Amino acid sequence: MRAPDELRALVEESLAELRLDPMLGALEEPIRYALGGGGKRIRPVLCLAVCEAAGSRAEGAALPATALELVHTFSLVHDDLPALDDDDERRGRPTVHVAFGEAVALLAGDALLAEAFALAGRSGRPEFVRELAGATLGMIGGQYLDVTGAQMQLEELHGLKTGRLFAAAVGLGLWSADVPVEHQGPWRAFGDELGVLFQAVDDALDGDGYAAELGPDGARRLAGEAAQRAHERLGGLDADTAVLAELVDGLAVRTA
Amino acid sequence: MRAPDELRALVEESLAELRLDPMLGALEEPIRYALGGGGKRIRPVLCLAVCEAAGSRAEGAALPATALELVHTFSLVHDDLPALDDDDERRGRPTVHVAFGEAVALLAGDALLAEAFALAGRSGRPEFVRELAGATLGMIGGQYLDVTGAQMQLEELHGLKTGRLFAAAVGLGLWSADVPVEHQGPWRAFGDELGVLFQAVDDALDGDGYAAELGPDGARRLAGEAAQRAHERLGGLDADTAVLAELVDGLAVRTA
Repeated sequence: MRAPDELRALVEESLAELRLDPMLGALEEPIRYALGGGGKRIRPVLCLAVCEAAGSRAEGAALPATALELVHTFSLVHDDLPALDDDDERRGRPTVHVAFGEAVALLAGDALLAEAFALAGRSGRPEFVRELAGATLGMIGGQYLDVTGAQMQLEELHGLKTGRLFAAAVGLGLWSADVPVEHQGPWRAFGDELGVLFQAVDDALDGDGYAAELGPDGARRLAGEAAQRAHERLGGLDADTAVLAELVDGLAVRTA
Repeated sequence: MRAPDELRALVEESLAELRLDPMLGALEEPIRYALGGGGKRIRPVLCLAVCEAAGSRAEGAALPATALELVHTFSLVHDDLPALDDDDERRGRPTVHVAFGEAVALLAGDALLAEAFALAGRSGRPEFVRELAGATLGMIGGQYLDVTGAQMQLEELHGLKTGRLFAAAVGLGLWSADVPVEHQGPWRAFGDELGVLFQAVDDALDGDGYAAELGPDGARRLAGEAAQRAHERLGGLDADTAVLAELVDGLAVRTA
């Protein structure tokens, strides 16, 4: 069982070794720029940790974990565009459209999504493709609700915008470890709690979402409750979940 | 062997029966709008016709043919955006961003691409996913070169922007008919000629690309030469290629 930092190093290594389609040419630069920038790699690390907890070596999940990070990065690049959130900065750097122009950012996002599926296709495992595609579509559905200002519960919105990629992280880790679908339920329930935890802390840090609705303390309380439920879910699994528990605690106390 | 019109009806039926991910919610409307509008469905019809010429029933290629049309439609929706070609009209109707707004068009395009891979993943055939992803990446690479005004041969640009999806149409039809990779070469060479033919006629009709470089007559001459080579390629195949020959002639004389 490798610690989160070791798993993160494996993710960085996979991303560094990722060979993009040569037809993309110089579009590789904005794509690499988007993939860099010091993200925490929470989703792919979760994917690898689930794979190990389920009894397989993390290397077996490196490909879908990388594909998942590509999907996540695609969503950031497109969400930052002027037509959507119109963000100029991300993690202290200019966003892709500020650095490279809007047309290039649009295409770089498209390419990241297509590369994710190219990678999943290369695995020869259709369940990777289905898991990724379903999560991507749920996330897009959430972004659409957000953009159109639909009246809905924040839980539902976050469940789509954030929760679906967390669910996919768990799902891809389980498929990688060949956990049959009938045994995946309790693991996936853990992933759902982790998604809520992540989002509640995110909102507490940013002062929006749950923090706007419940106040910063309310968002922190919600996060604490989700963390507790996540731990309970782990306790119910017949597996060594020490690293997953460490991920829960890391998410609960993060400050950036 | 079914005639092109019958194959087109099969494509329309598959598109009409396509169930989008329910998480997309009301984003389904702009997606359906983009998929409608009276396109000629050249790529999916080609896919089905190749499948039949290679000895299988077209129904077996309906899924990848539909996925290919989704990818094509994704590319139209994004290319029409203000950041790229900034087109207000397509086939006599307002483009998606004019009808639904830029944010929704961006998300609808993303969703079309993800739905294409969801569909390909559902097939359980990784070669469908790889064929689609490779073609999509090549097409994006071509669009990037176009946007950045890179100095290059028109053939190369068109080979990416148009050619890759035509190549995928042939490839997906061949995979659907279980034609082994070592026998695919001559079929794929036919697809390449068809891509050139399509683009040269397109440019002659629009007065750009090859028509701008060679004049309208020059573009038509190029189209005629590509049509001839496509027929020669068909002649070299040990298969009933009558319907494919009909597609070549249809593309060569089209006026819209």
